[in-house]
Amino acid sequence: MKFEVLILGNSSATPIYERHPSAQVLNFNEQLFLIDCGEATQMQLFRYGIKSNKITHIFISHLHGDHYLGLVGLLSSMHLVGRKSDLHLYGPAPLEEILLLQFHYSDTNLNYKLIFHPTNPEKEEVILKTAMLTVRSFPLTHRIPCTGFRFDEGKRAATLNIEAVEKLKIPSVFLSGIKKGADYTSPEGTIYRSEELTYKAPSSRSYVYCSDTKPVDDYLEVIKGADLLYHESTFLHELSERAQQTFHSTALEAATVAKTAQVKKLLLGHYSARYKDLTPLLDEAKSVFEHTELSIEGNWFLV
Amino acid sequence: MKFEVLILGNSSATPIYERHPSAQVLNFNEQLFLIDCGEATQMQLFRYGIKSNKITHIFISHLHGDHYLGLVGLLSSMHLVGRKSDLHLYGPAPLEEILLLQFHYSDTNLNYKLIFHPTNPEKEEVILKTAMLTVRSFPLTHRIPCTGFRFDEGKRAATLNIEAVEKLKIPSVFLSGIKKGADYTSPEGTIYRSEELTYKAPSSRSYVYCSDTKPVDDYLEVIKGADLLYHESTFLHELSERAQQTFHSTALEAATVAKTAQVKKLLLGHYSARYKDLTPLLDEAKSVFEHTELSIEGNWFLV
Repeated sequence: MKFEVLILGNSSATPIYERHPSAQVLNFNEQLFLIDCGEATQMQLFRYGIKSNKITHIFISHLHGDHYLGLVGLLSSMHLVGRKSDLHLYGPAPLEEILLLQFHYSDTNLNYKLIFHPTNPEKEEVILKTAMLTVRSFPLTHRIPCTGFRFDEGKRAATLNIEAVEKLKIPSVFLSGIKKGADYTSPEGTIYRSEELTYKAPSSRSYVYCSDTKPVDDYLEVIKGADLLYHESTFLHELSERAQQTFHSTALEAATVAKTAQVKKLLLGHYSARYKDLTPLLDEAKSVFEHTELSIEGNWFLV
Repeated sequence: MKFEVLILGNSSATPIYERHPSAQVLNFNEQLFLIDCGEATQMQLFRYGIKSNKITHIFISHLHGDHYLGLVGLLSSMHLVGRKSDLHLYGPAPLEEILLLQFHYSDTNLNYKLIFHPTNPEKEEVILKTAMLTVRSFPLTHRIPCTGFRFDEGKRAATLNIEAVEKLKIPSVFLSGIKKGADYTSPEGTIYRSEELTYKAPSSRSYVYCSDTKPVDDYLEVIKGADLLYHESTFLHELSERAQQTFHSTALEAATVAKTAQVKKLLLGHYSARYKDLTPLLDEAKSVFEHTELSIEGNWFLV
């Protein structure tokens, strides 16, 4: 089952060097989620062949422009290309006021239903739960109210041991049950346990998005053990004072968070415009946490 | 003296085929004006090497997203790169409310002074006047209040007849006066008339921006005789009914406006996303008004 993230933007506040402000598409089993929506996200979606109408949920971390200024344009374009299906939007409460004001003055009445869910910047909350996925928002520490998001896959089904199934000529009607743990009794009365007929279910995967934030202990528990952690790394550690003042993290700090929270892999991003070459940020993070990669626009990363 | 316009965006509502929403830079004697500011204008400025801090005035025609959604990002980036000089912004009155709301929630306090001038969508008005330039806004006819803009160069100075000046060994202190029309009396008492020492001043130039609008008689008088007219041409004339419904113009209608108003040159733009190839729009307009060009992103057009 697909679970991967496409980077549409990896730049901090000022877009530069063809780097765009924050936006990502999470593909979970062919359902598309948009995480943050910086200016020009709709152009980036077009560039990378993502059909905006396949996006069902949008998550906005906070109201700094580089994380949401592409939203009105995207929502308007969805309307213009005839979207009819509901769209769920999660973000800081005032986002609704900002959208409604702009739709009012542009005389826009969306063809589709936009369902707004305000996030809570004060405490961790489950904001979406299906049989297959749970999404949480949790507080980050930034200049203005800001949340991270954690996406947890539900329990995964075991996969069949095809060889064993074929050898016993098990009718297909039983297979779904066997995958879910049911034993199988053959016409001769022999009982075969589910474990004998399947491979163990792979463990459930999780993706965490942390942008923008100072590195603080508060969110370590909620991001713990994630398979993939996207954590902002705006500066090199030589600018840690500047990072502190602006409520951002350095690459070293992002890596320390990843190590402490025992995540499997770290993805850096939200790079300051002062860095044309990003290698020093990667090197710095890797000195603390080896399993680190740079988020690069247009690249998909497996969760 | 430079007077030319750079196209940053020529697309109508939905950006596509690497075409961006409306934005233009007018360079008048190395003073830069921005006309409309669709999403990703700041990226387009960067792409074409325009320093945003050289922009002194911004003119917004109306509050459809494809004409102003790049504004908050651009104003914020100007702040982040340390702009100190005043910036004048002209646009529909509610634009101020929209900006202030977004600056409030992003906790942005601009380093520089943003001076807002609401435009009047009901009648033609001079909105800026210097010795060298006059700018007018005037009503267009669109779904929501919308204005066009006309930029008129002031009276141009005559150019010196260098040969005559050198022959008479006229001291340089007199030259500025001679260009402005003063006669020159030689040490021997001979009077030389300004006309003998100069070439006639070239006539003053004018640029007009009309996007978005139905073609109506109301604005013909104000755009009359312009050297360069940018007029939206969202559709081919076979979609004139759709143009009528959406308060837009066809290429044929834009050309008819240009012809009736006796402008010198027409620039088409604001192309619908349905046209990948723009040649049919150009051909259609040229069938009525020969001096027509397509506005193409990244191209400068002389006024």
